[in-house]
Amino acid sequence: MQVLLARRPNKKLCVEDFLIIENELPPIPPDHFLVQNRYLSLDPYIRGRMDDKKSYAKPIAIGEVMAGYAVGDIIASKNESFKKGDIVIGNFGWQLFAISKGSDVKKIVDTSLPVSLNLGVLGMPGITGYVGLLDIGQPQPGETVVVTSAAGAVGSVVGQIAKIKGCRAVGVASGPKKCHYVTHDLGMDACIDYKAGKVKGELKKACPNGIDVCFENVGGHIFQSLLSHINPFARIVLCGLIAQYSCEATYSMKSMARLLSNRATLQGFIISDHQDRWNQARNDLSQWVRDGRIKCHESIVNGLDHAPSAFIDFLSGKSLGKVLIKVV
Amino acid sequence: MQVLLARRPNKKLCVEDFLIIENELPPIPPDHFLVQNRYLSLDPYIRGRMDDKKSYAKPIAIGEVMAGYAVGDIIASKNESFKKGDIVIGNFGWQLFAISKGSDVKKIVDTSLPVSLNLGVLGMPGITGYVGLLDIGQPQPGETVVVTSAAGAVGSVVGQIAKIKGCRAVGVASGPKKCHYVTHDLGMDACIDYKAGKVKGELKKACPNGIDVCFENVGGHIFQSLLSHINPFARIVLCGLIAQYSCEATYSMKSMARLLSNRATLQGFIISDHQDRWNQARNDLSQWVRDGRIKCHESIVNGLDHAPSAFIDFLSGKSLGKVLIKVV
Repeated sequence: MQVLLARRPNKKLCVEDFLIIENELPPIPPDHFLVQNRYLSLDPYIRGRMDDKKSYAKPIAIGEVMAGYAVGDIIASKNESFKKGDIVIGNFGWQLFAISKGSDVKKIVDTSLPVSLNLGVLGMPGITGYVGLLDIGQPQPGETVVVTSAAGAVGSVVGQIAKIKGCRAVGVASGPKKCHYVTHDLGMDACIDYKAGKVKGELKKACPNGIDVCFENVGGHIFQSLLSHINPFARIVLCGLIAQYSCEATYSMKSMARLLSNRATLQGFIISDHQDRWNQARNDLSQWVRDGRIKCHESIVNGLDHAPSAFIDFLSGKSLGKVLIKVV
Repeated sequence: MQVLLARRPNKKLCVEDFLIIENELPPIPPDHFLVQNRYLSLDPYIRGRMDDKKSYAKPIAIGEVMAGYAVGDIIASKNESFKKGDIVIGNFGWQLFAISKGSDVKKIVDTSLPVSLNLGVLGMPGITGYVGLLDIGQPQPGETVVVTSAAGAVGSVVGQIAKIKGCRAVGVASGPKKCHYVTHDLGMDACIDYKAGKVKGELKKACPNGIDVCFENVGGHIFQSLLSHINPFARIVLCGLIAQYSCEATYSMKSMARLLSNRATLQGFIISDHQDRWNQARNDLSQWVRDGRIKCHESIVNGLDHAPSAFIDFLSGKSLGKVLIKVV
């Protein structure tokens, strides 16, 4: 089974944008191996690759298998570096079986923690939160860190690391269930439900000393509200703009003027530029998970055929924590 | 003679916002000295201080003397550190005589270059260009630096330092006269006349390899056009937003998305945070002026009573280079 991109989405994603097919496995070419995917990771960047526009990653072609990282088992190999039985992680795509030559594929050696965590807190989302917050945000003890999409795979890690580093951690999320999760389960100091309205007042209450670090996953009007609360020399980590993929709104000139008058730094950030930090981040995150200092919730959807609808729900903010498809 | 702030401007500045008065000099209090201003500096930040809104500098009160840096001569002193005959620079305001205690006042010791340059290339505007470009923009040889308001006191220094550092320097200015000055007199590689229209096409021609450093003095729709041409890892020095003081337009969401996808850094910047760089900057700039590697044009308006109209003309972009009022 494979999930292909059927057509370019017309702003709002729908299941008709995907095509599910069954087909025969081709023979394994020399130096390649065959992976059977266990878990497929749903991540916001995939939505960007469905559009035909210039970005840091190439668009997925129409008729091509949907891109995405997965954890799987090697079930046959003609490659000396990868053996049958190895558990691997790579961009294996939305399919049951993948053939790979091993480029950008990592073996999972330490299986003392659940392997699915390699797609979440110990993988790209967790390491994005770690590097973005610590290297770019540079939070100091006592400062206030605000993170949007705080119940998500990246945001939940950002808020928990902010607490570990002695900061006040404030999340922004949608709905009371997620906000309860953010404060009660993840231990952040406050969480603003942006769907409940009155964001400005809530923000003032939650951040009595202003915002020193803003870790932005969403963009749009909430981001503008955050910018109106930044302190002098604030750092803004621009990690994602998930709200803007299907939005034509604008930023006010005031937002830009606030960056100037507060001498703020706003930095766009993509984790693939920071490979050198991967091992350190993974080691620290593993330790914090073992120590119970970082908690992580997985929302697991069974069956690859549910990936399109699960992805639509994920983008509309319906899920909690790391969203995975259990392929087999 | 003093020029006071008569009222808060209603977006577009007019001469009625100022009040010119004649009055008696008060006696000099202990530890103070009396300065007779020679040259008054017109700078964009003064416009910001005329509004009653929170910013990095306190608003000028209604009825208060207009703020502004000036070069003058001490004509009487009750302060041990400042003697009669000293030439000094400080925030002496829009007036013929100022009384000061010496805080934030610098003596001009080296008078081998014209003293008025201490308000331009060797003063706040020149040092703003130096520190903003070199410390925040970090231009590398062969990169493309774009600077807006390129014929102005800050922009002209930025473009010429970019050339000294081996970059391609591209200016943005209004009208053919300024553009000719920028390329012919200042030696920048190209200058885009944003009043001639077709900015996008001109920008593409002037920056065939994209933009690596953007030194922004203006803001608004030209800034958005520049953002659409940035290269990966571009640095954007947000120094001024002069176009936005009387503008209600907005930034498109795309501008923010471009910062993210190009992993750009945008940093708001105010020279008063960088006092530690003042001496180095002044030394380098003096040397470059002596060597003829940095040229500077002064637009001098005679008479303090012309300061309001000169300031209005200055903000609307009518002047070239550093704009000064010759007080006496």
